[in-house]
Amino acid sequence: MANWQNLDTLAAYQALAEMKKPIDLKEALAGEKGGKRVAEYCVPMACGLKYVYAAKQVDEAVLEALEKLAEEAGLAEKFAELYNGAMINTGEKRLVLHHLTRGQLGEDVMADGVNKREFYVRQQERIAEFAGKVHRGEITNAAGEKFTTVVQIGIGGSDLGPRAMYLALENWAKANGAMKMQAKFISNVDPDDAAGVLDTVDAAHAIFILVSKSGTTLETLTNESFVKDALKKAGLDPAKHMIAVTSETSPLAGNSDYLDAFFMDDYIGGRYSSTSAVGGAVLSLAFGPEVFARFLDGAAAMDKLAAGKDLRKNAPMLDALIGVYERNVLGYPSTAVLPYSQALSRFPAHLQQADMESNGKSVNRYGEPVNYPTGPVIFGEPGTNGQHSFYQLLHQGTDIIPLQFVGFRKSQFGLDVVIQGSTSQQKLGANVAAQIIAFACGKEDENRNKYFEGGRPSSIIVGDQLTPESLGALLSHFENKIMFQGFAWNLNSFDQEGVQLGKVLAKKVLAHDTDGALKAFSDMLDI
Amino acid sequence: MANWQNLDTLAAYQALAEMKKPIDLKEALAGEKGGKRVAEYCVPMACGLKYVYAAKQVDEAVLEALEKLAEEAGLAEKFAELYNGAMINTGEKRLVLHHLTRGQLGEDVMADGVNKREFYVRQQERIAEFAGKVHRGEITNAAGEKFTTVVQIGIGGSDLGPRAMYLALENWAKANGAMKMQAKFISNVDPDDAAGVLDTVDAAHAIFILVSKSGTTLETLTNESFVKDALKKAGLDPAKHMIAVTSETSPLAGNSDYLDAFFMDDYIGGRYSSTSAVGGAVLSLAFGPEVFARFLDGAAAMDKLAAGKDLRKNAPMLDALIGVYERNVLGYPSTAVLPYSQALSRFPAHLQQADMESNGKSVNRYGEPVNYPTGPVIFGEPGTNGQHSFYQLLHQGTDIIPLQFVGFRKSQFGLDVVIQGSTSQQKLGANVAAQIIAFACGKEDENRNKYFEGGRPSSIIVGDQLTPESLGALLSHFENKIMFQGFAWNLNSFDQEGVQLGKVLAKKVLAHDTDGALKAFSDMLDI
Repeated sequence: MANWQNLDTLAAYQALAEMKKPIDLKEALAGEKGGKRVAEYCVPMACGLKYVYAAKQVDEAVLEALEKLAEEAGLAEKFAELYNGAMINTGEKRLVLHHLTRGQLGEDVMADGVNKREFYVRQQERIAEFAGKVHRGEITNAAGEKFTTVVQIGIGGSDLGPRAMYLALENWAKANGAMKMQAKFISNVDPDDAAGVLDTVDAAHAIFILVSKSGTTLETLTNESFVKDALKKAGLDPAKHMIAVTSETSPLAGNSDYLDAFFMDDYIGGRYSSTSAVGGAVLSLAFGPEVFARFLDGAAAMDKLAAGKDLRKNAPMLDALIGVYERNVLGYPSTAVLPYSQALSRFPAHLQQADMESNGKSVNRYGEPVNYPTGPVIFGEPGTNGQHSFYQLLHQGTDIIPLQFVGFRKSQFGLDVVIQGSTSQQKLGANVAAQIIAFACGKEDENRNKYFEGGRPSSIIVGDQLTPESLGALLSHFENKIMFQGFAWNLNSFDQEGVQLGKVLAKKVLAHDTDGALKAFSDMLDI
Repeated sequence: MANWQNLDTLAAYQALAEMKKPIDLKEALAGEKGGKRVAEYCVPMACGLKYVYAAKQVDEAVLEALEKLAEEAGLAEKFAELYNGAMINTGEKRLVLHHLTRGQLGEDVMADGVNKREFYVRQQERIAEFAGKVHRGEITNAAGEKFTTVVQIGIGGSDLGPRAMYLALENWAKANGAMKMQAKFISNVDPDDAAGVLDTVDAAHAIFILVSKSGTTLETLTNESFVKDALKKAGLDPAKHMIAVTSETSPLAGNSDYLDAFFMDDYIGGRYSSTSAVGGAVLSLAFGPEVFARFLDGAAAMDKLAAGKDLRKNAPMLDALIGVYERNVLGYPSTAVLPYSQALSRFPAHLQQADMESNGKSVNRYGEPVNYPTGPVIFGEPGTNGQHSFYQLLHQGTDIIPLQFVGFRKSQFGLDVVIQGSTSQQKLGANVAAQIIAFACGKEDENRNKYFEGGRPSSIIVGDQLTPESLGALLSHFENKIMFQGFAWNLNSFDQEGVQLGKVLAKKVLAHDTDGALKAFSDMLDI
């Protein structure tokens, strides 16, 4: 058993905590030495990606301290416990098995009387079979016509991850002849969300995927009713247009209201479910099961690297610990995720959930309050857009915000135009390279308004192209980074008690069981 | 002339700075007293909106201190200087006139030899005339067919604001028979952005709006070329499909490459340009000029209230100063914007730009470093989606993040479904009411993992429905809030020197004029 202790009790952390003065990035990146540093502070990842941390405020001394911390905190050991089936989700007393949806890192994991890897693979096979029938026109609408659109109805992890992955691959699929069906998403209980999406969908040729692990998520069931009403009004039979992704014990399983049901289980948290049936159904229908399988392969390849013990060769672990240094020692309160790829437009929103819902906690895995900051605020938008927007604060604001860039050498469509001697893709890459140096090194100017202090750290993940494989690897990187940070902070990253209280109070409002301020707010909103 | 001084030199601020211990929200909101507080801590806004700050950590003592601060900082006086045409943008030596695009708050403002209010109105009239001709089929494509789609090509303020406003009104327009043309947006220099959008657009029936004040924004010109290439490949004449929104002195003005050009000027910052021709062209084409005029009316009505001197009746000024108290005295580093309206899905991204680009500064308006924190990180997503995601950290994370809710009593489409005794719209409202109380009051629990500390402050802007008028009022509220905070911090909120350095370095990369670390990063990205 790994030694689960609070961060501040570890000798390695106490040593790290002495390193309060960040290194001088301008100095570190200057001249030829700077070029060498970029080559050295670089970790190969899966699928041709690499993690470059040359513009992070670390040197050999900090890295050695982080290596000791990784060792003393037993990060690799804890990950091994996790993938071998230990009860890591202490709050809900559950295993944490999303890695098994894409590979087998360790021993067979048995739960609920079955081998869980086999269970997840079986669901993938069932989804692939179903998607194939839809694509070949063997499963059709009542008029015998092919389905052309798939609409996911889900919220939180059943929405953000699959939506971000779909958007990430939509143009790639178009460019590579892999586009089988367009996908849309309904999530918000705001009735305008469902109404707005339905307004753009040809319902007669649409399959709706109802995604709810428990089969009781109120928003999702409400939106299901909204959709069913619309289908009935259009003279369609909802049972011929809907499938479910749920747990085997939910009321949605084995229910004749659905064409079929595909299963996940309690060991897959919503925010880690993109590689399970939750992402699998919509992505397999949209792009074909082969593309989804390639996405899983990319994630599995990156998981393998994440299981390595050598911090310098393990990008997610290193990224995690540099983040702990920035958060706990240097005191930076938030992190921006800045993909230079329009296809990753919703990837920051997915990471915002994955990270903030996992590590936005004040108690350790035993339910005891911790005395140190945990998960930071995560936000971001794609570059170059953000450059014309909130980068002002990132460059010249009074707080330092660590930055996480992502960039690719090739676009997805491959269509481009040469203006002023360079392609758009080259401009995109030039901008991200320039930003890294601008943030790190700053610029002197006698006019203080044009002066850039620099010392603003960033890392970048660079790849050749955003493909199903590299997207899988990218997702795995961040999932594992978050997991390692949770281990370091001694949190349970896999429950979410903080989202419960609002639900309880909302029920009271709807039951008119309120008084005082809550009643006043409810009245104001005409409940 | 108002007295432009740094925040920390003001006696009123020094008194406020003593109030480091926030009031007990649970106590303040308890029982009947709590209901009364909600009714009292509420400011009417324009268009039926109200700003409720009962769940902010303020009491009479804090409010009195803020009143003194508003007085001593001369906030109302400074706003009057601004709208009467003083040179408020000290960095670029420019007037700040976006309020004039929607009304006349004070004296006539003359600049460039013309009355600026008349100039902006004239542009609105020209746009209305052009849009009318397009809608009536008097301006058509070469085949004499009506245009059905409008595509805005712009970045930063030429993209985020107009896009957020379009999305905010799209479903309203559909429900109210005001949908004239669908709008799409191309912004990123990533060639996949233009390629992806063009893939979904019927170019033969599309008008493209090129938006660049200077006429030299590289991303925008690059995307224009991309679009022109695509039009030519489709056998279309770009000059018959494009209009420009630019300044009168730009190369895009009076240029036969465009069907027409509509003008803004140097006194309208990009992030404040939604009510100028930048928002006017796309919104008038999409929804008709009458709808755009209603949007302006809402903004103008709210501007009038923002010009009032009484802090307790001036929602943007009060919101601004409560924010200063939270940022500078209570030390909260970020703010979440959480609209309970799917239509406002990109409103937080627009505010992120408006706020962080305006007040993410470390020097005052005279270019001298300030000794206090200025603009916070702004982020957000619509509720209820966020509840199933990053709210975990907001409820139970180690940092306190002030929250800015927005909610409406009615949906835009008016389509709804009753599940478990309530409509979706009621569920939406119940959730936001519940969240306010959950954040403020928390919950005791012996299980520390289920314990909610509370003391997490929020405000809410409540309205009847999101309409053109209320959207205009909402936009004005936040624009003026940001302006007042800039005044309080003694910043120039209207320049953006922080976005320049990256541009300069990107040019060097593209010219291969680099060495060391910048060359290494550029090589990695195949520039």
